[in-house]
Amino acid sequence: MIKRIEVFKENSFSDKSFKKLIVHDSSDFKILNFNFSAGQELPIHSHDIDGQLSIVVLEGSGEFLGKDNSVFPANPGDVLISDIREPHGIKAKTNMRVLVTIAPPI
Amino acid sequence: MIKRIEVFKENSFSDKSFKKLIVHDSSDFKILNFNFSAGQELPIHSHDIDGQLSIVVLEGSGEFLGKDNSVFPANPGDVLISDIREPHGIKAKTNMRVLVTIAPPI
Repeated sequence: MIKRIEVFKENSFSDKSFKKLIVHDSSDFKILNFNFSAGQELPIHSHDIDGQLSIVVLEGSGEFLGKDNSVFPANPGDVLISDIREPHGIKAKTNMRVLVTIAPPI
Repeated sequence: MIKRIEVFKENSFSDKSFKKLIVHDSSDFKILNFNFSAGQELPIHSHDIDGQLSIVVLEGSGEFLGKDNSVFPANPGDVLISDIREPHGIKAKTNMRVLVTIAPPI
C-alpha cells in the first residue's frame, strides 16, 4: 500500500469552524488535517487511553495549548508531542494548517 | 508527557548528505526530520516488517519514489503513506524538509 494525499488542495477553510480532513486511518496510526481560520481553536481536551499524538504545523501560526493554561508558540515546522491522556489543544492566530498523527489510532 | 520541537531551528542542511534529526522515539511511534539539499535523496528502500510510515513535506519540493521507478510529486503539505515493507524513497529538487513518522516504531 502506497498513496499520496495533497493536503493543501483537499481541505479548505471556513469562517464557521475549523475544517477536518481524514488523511489516513489504519490499524497503525490515524492522520488528520485541521485547517483553522484566524482565531479558531481546537479546545484543550484529552482521552483516558494509552498512546501518543503529534501535531505538526504545516502553515500559519498560533499556539499549542497545554494543561493549566500553558501555551507554546506554534509556527511552521514546530511539532508538539503529547500523550493522548495529557490535555492538549491548538489555537490559530493566522489561518493555520496542522497535521495530527495518533498512534495507536483512536 | 508533552514537548515541543522546533524542527526548522534544530536541524540544518549539508552539501555532503542529507541531515537527520530524531524528533521523537517512543513505543508508540518514531518521528524523524530529514533535510535534503537540492539533488540529495533517500534512496528507495523497504523493511520486511509490519507497520506503516508517513512522509510529510514541510518545505521545498521534490519527488516521492516508489517501486518500479514510480514517481509522485512532493510539494509542501503533500503526505505519502506507505507500508514499511513497500519500497519508498524521496528525492529533493530544491532544499527540502520532510517529517517521517513510523508506527509502530522501527
